[in-house]
Amino acid sequence: MLKIGICGYGTVGQSFVEHLRVHDDKIQSSVSEEFEIALIADRSIDKKEYNKDIAVTKDVMEMTSDSNINIIVELIGGIDIPYKVITSAIKNKKHVITANKALIAEHGDEIFKLAKEHNVYFGFEASVAGAIPIIQTLTNSMSNENILSITGIINGTCNYILDQMSSHGLEFNDALDEAKELGYAEADPTFDINGMDAAHKISILASLVYKIKSPLKNTYIEGIENITTMDIEYAKELGYSIKHVGITNKKNDSIQCRVHPVLIHKDNILSQVLGVMNALLITGDKFGTSMLYGNGAGGDATASAVVTNLVEAINFSSGKDLRNKNIFKSSGENSFNISKNEDIASPFYLRIYAHDISGVMAEITNVLANEDISIEAVTQHEPIDLDSLIPIVMITNSVNGISISNAIKKIESLAHVEGKVHAIRVLKTDER
Amino acid sequence: MLKIGICGYGTVGQSFVEHLRVHDDKIQSSVSEEFEIALIADRSIDKKEYNKDIAVTKDVMEMTSDSNINIIVELIGGIDIPYKVITSAIKNKKHVITANKALIAEHGDEIFKLAKEHNVYFGFEASVAGAIPIIQTLTNSMSNENILSITGIINGTCNYILDQMSSHGLEFNDALDEAKELGYAEADPTFDINGMDAAHKISILASLVYKIKSPLKNTYIEGIENITTMDIEYAKELGYSIKHVGITNKKNDSIQCRVHPVLIHKDNILSQVLGVMNALLITGDKFGTSMLYGNGAGGDATASAVVTNLVEAINFSSGKDLRNKNIFKSSGENSFNISKNEDIASPFYLRIYAHDISGVMAEITNVLANEDISIEAVTQHEPIDLDSLIPIVMITNSVNGISISNAIKKIESLAHVEGKVHAIRVLKTDER
Repeated sequence: MLKIGICGYGTVGQSFVEHLRVHDDKIQSSVSEEFEIALIADRSIDKKEYNKDIAVTKDVMEMTSDSNINIIVELIGGIDIPYKVITSAIKNKKHVITANKALIAEHGDEIFKLAKEHNVYFGFEASVAGAIPIIQTLTNSMSNENILSITGIINGTCNYILDQMSSHGLEFNDALDEAKELGYAEADPTFDINGMDAAHKISILASLVYKIKSPLKNTYIEGIENITTMDIEYAKELGYSIKHVGITNKKNDSIQCRVHPVLIHKDNILSQVLGVMNALLITGDKFGTSMLYGNGAGGDATASAVVTNLVEAINFSSGKDLRNKNIFKSSGENSFNISKNEDIASPFYLRIYAHDISGVMAEITNVLANEDISIEAVTQHEPIDLDSLIPIVMITNSVNGISISNAIKKIESLAHVEGKVHAIRVLKTDER
Repeated sequence: MLKIGICGYGTVGQSFVEHLRVHDDKIQSSVSEEFEIALIADRSIDKKEYNKDIAVTKDVMEMTSDSNINIIVELIGGIDIPYKVITSAIKNKKHVITANKALIAEHGDEIFKLAKEHNVYFGFEASVAGAIPIIQTLTNSMSNENILSITGIINGTCNYILDQMSSHGLEFNDALDEAKELGYAEADPTFDINGMDAAHKISILASLVYKIKSPLKNTYIEGIENITTMDIEYAKELGYSIKHVGITNKKNDSIQCRVHPVLIHKDNILSQVLGVMNALLITGDKFGTSMLYGNGAGGDATASAVVTNLVEAINFSSGKDLRNKNIFKSSGENSFNISKNEDIASPFYLRIYAHDISGVMAEITNVLANEDISIEAVTQHEPIDLDSLIPIVMITNSVNGISISNAIKKIESLAHVEGKVHAIRVLKTDER
């Protein structure tokens, strides 16, 4: 009888226990050994409801050295304590499951190595895109060929806000308030909005797929704070949605890993991912383009991924499923250059405010031509009243970040152009 | 060194060999034992190009009793010969991989039992939706909870034809001709167009998920032959696409398994699956709604699924991955009632031709009201010229197949209604 310890008994922990209770028959029939939840550790367990047959403790470190516990499910959150719990547990030869993306993105390299050394199972399916079995799919069916690119809508809060701005014309702050009210955004949504959460997730996927150390520190990260309802409207007129994505791909000996808003053409199925849903578009050299779509957050969805790992962990423990060894076999071995944002080429959306004076468009297009940037589409909108500025919106050909920065500086210095030029990358066809 | 035999060396077989060659490193690092292709059997191998280091034979039965061969990859097509090859191979304790959906839908129950008895690996990932790892996902991460429903666009030919009719206004026959020219439809596309191919696939999924014997014989099957460009246009006006889908779900003690065209609302991501792409929308009681999207056909996509199975087969053979046992553990054990088409409730799209005479709409709505059918949306189109009939298009509330049949008979007998009433089911919200 394998003994499971749960560290952290919040929403996901409680959903996990409930999932095991409801689907006990199905889960028992997938595993080769019986198991039970033997211990729950939570600092405020006395304020929570739990099955009184299960032993509890307030000391989260206790179970990492408890010789009765075989598998630890870490659901605490934060980085420092989970790091201590997980590394200590692995050193004590316990199998570990976690949903902690920040921890894996920051310390995954070390933990993967430790798990390999101590020959224990380490599962983190729930750390990226909740119920979508992306880790399992990438490390199983998709591990037998070259992954050319992954483009993912991997932050449900951002996607919900942008979708509400698009479908109901809400301004950013109103959409954010609504997301908070509905529980789709945390009380402090900073890491969702500024892109850090998505950066953790895309770093984990990049390190898995390309067998590199976590590229988090070299990941270009931009949030959605500067997206306006106006940009969303202008993009729509040109046939695009604005989405917040994580992208990783490999070109020659360089790997891109970046997080930012993009314009996605309406024919790309990723543009149709609405509300809080997550989706990952993955291109392989043999299977072509695939997409996995589902719930990226929420207690039940996340617990569902933890259960997937639990079944793997039990079958690993009894020697019936040793695939987990392959995940870490050559992890972190490759070393590639991570492309800088200024060296990455893509088409750009530009929004420029100018005085309604004849010749201003010619001035702008001259600047672009001098930087070898051509214009694929352009719309000039009417000024709201006689005195106001005209918004000029365009989509360029595919150019490097550095070229667009140079052009923007020159455009901003033009006499008839006012304020900052707003630039957003456009997803290229080969990133579909 | 494990020896692989390939039976049938057409497009998929050749892509499979090429995939193994190109990605040898990646595949070798996922398996626990070395392997090589030792024998290719194909009736017309002398007319084909192949690596002359590999032994060949024209006798497809030969390798099933060859004691050197450990794993047989069956890619012949048809039913009778593959049935003999596979059953004979399993009885001789060989692991088997097949892409043959017709065979599994017809004889899966027997083959699954045989594989369990002889303790061999049996893989059929490529039989449903090509490169989409649907079998692996359903039998792994999604096997730990209740699958409430699967709704799949699982025939690329049908999806391409309907998409071309929708986006370019082509008539059915012209779209079919175009699909043939582009290689998206077979020379004889009967089984794609009439729904039989999709029926094979949804039967396989239903039997896997609900642990029942293949429900093929009780599956309601309707193709796309009767869909007109006009219906597609009218559906679009009401906010729907017309797609050809396979549906399986479980309600109380009844299982639905059916294949037919449906109207899908544009907010449902399944309506955005274009061209030859396949997609499966799956709802579980814990993970919620997920979708897997990708290439459903083509040599490389299908070969990619065969490679996935090969890795599993090798690791099964060496005892490192025994998950395949769980797939067949309780297969075919459950016995549920398969719902008849007339007992299945859904909203319906109706297209009725009537003479432009006052009172005709009242007559039609009276018939519907007498059958307890209400109208959710209706559009009445202008006649093309003064003498012509007016098309009346409506969407009903959710009603049983038998009620709609009764109502249609009565509507067709009305004096001012001409010809047949055309009915298409509308996908319900809970089938999203």
